[in-house]
Amino acid sequence: MAKVVAEISSSLDGYVAGPNQTLEEPLGRGGDQLHEWAYPLKSFREPHGLPGGETGPDDELLAQSFRAAGAVVMGRRMFSGGAGPWEADPKADGWWGDEPPFHMPVFVVTHHAREPLAKTGTTFTFVTDGFESAVEQARAAAGDKNVQVGGGADAIDQCLEAGLADELLIHLVPVLLGDGVRLFAGVSPELPPRFELASVLDSPLVTHLRYRILR
Amino acid sequence: MAKVVAEISSSLDGYVAGPNQTLEEPLGRGGDQLHEWAYPLKSFREPHGLPGGETGPDDELLAQSFRAAGAVVMGRRMFSGGAGPWEADPKADGWWGDEPPFHMPVFVVTHHAREPLAKTGTTFTFVTDGFESAVEQARAAAGDKNVQVGGGADAIDQCLEAGLADELLIHLVPVLLGDGVRLFAGVSPELPPRFELASVLDSPLVTHLRYRILR
Repeated sequence: MAKVVAEISSSLDGYVAGPNQTLEEPLGRGGDQLHEWAYPLKSFREPHGLPGGETGPDDELLAQSFRAAGAVVMGRRMFSGGAGPWEADPKADGWWGDEPPFHMPVFVVTHHAREPLAKTGTTFTFVTDGFESAVEQARAAAGDKNVQVGGGADAIDQCLEAGLADELLIHLVPVLLGDGVRLFAGVSPELPPRFELASVLDSPLVTHLRYRILR
Repeated sequence: MAKVVAEISSSLDGYVAGPNQTLEEPLGRGGDQLHEWAYPLKSFREPHGLPGGETGPDDELLAQSFRAAGAVVMGRRMFSGGAGPWEADPKADGWWGDEPPFHMPVFVVTHHAREPLAKTGTTFTFVTDGFESAVEQARAAAGDKNVQVGGGADAIDQCLEAGLADELLIHLVPVLLGDGVRLFAGVSPELPPRFELASVLDSPLVTHLRYRILR
């Protein structure tokens, strides 16, 4: 059966974005370091329309994640960096221009209703009744493929809190950001999810920790 | 050459102890979960004077750490849970009774001067002029063996901040504590240490991440 996989890059001190997120620095100060392992990879470059790229274990893992996914769920902030009414959002069409790198249906959770947005290869559907509904719609769209919850921290926390995620894949990057957006900050410590290590893949730049989430 | 190795167990959300540390719960609420992987191991039980125990990869790693170490540096709170004058500290002789599990010289960093304390197999020396001095004294005592910085978070942070540590070994336990004492909170984000993954060993209960610290 298809799984709901939450996937995010984290610093060694637990931040998934740095402080002071702006339109110019959507990942906050130092946050780009969290994704440097991915930028040179073939499986990152290809969906972004870029030629070439490195192959190897990191690339295979990313390619496998991409192939396994049939739909994506994300938070509003990951989509545009904004909040509030769309009319006032300078990135209301998303960060990615005319051909976003997803190439599958994307469900954006927001408080602000809006018609679906079709771009080349990717249609963004805006869901205003919460993560559970977004995951359900994504499941239907994904068929027998996985639903990927791509972030940010709040989206993943809410999926963990609601028991919606089957796996958590953390790309642990050995840098310290010192401040910023922490994963798990929105998960209640009273009855936290339980994790079981499924696999580890390490390379010089990043350690990929895959956990099954026990119910 | 002998290395200075900082070693600590951490939750997936970055806590090395839970909230509300007390004499009854020195690791805070839920903090015991961070060490459950170690308790059944032969290499944990043996220095505590207990028979038997499990063998296997986790045990070998712990045994190797123990064999490689010639002296230990720790913070006052790890030694007794206390602070302030020794006369008012109910655990002024440490947590461990007459035969502490170290079986090597231990250097305790404190603001409160005190004569060395000799127990069976372990002498505790109290260092009042800071971590750099404690690490120097521990190096001299360790000879060609490693200095182990055993915690807590503050001791490790200060060693990282002062550039004293050569390696950081994190035993990453897949639980969420939600609150408590965070590793790295005392490391300045302006010029953080750089880490390079040296090795990963994973088992069902814990992932051991060993990082070289670059200068």
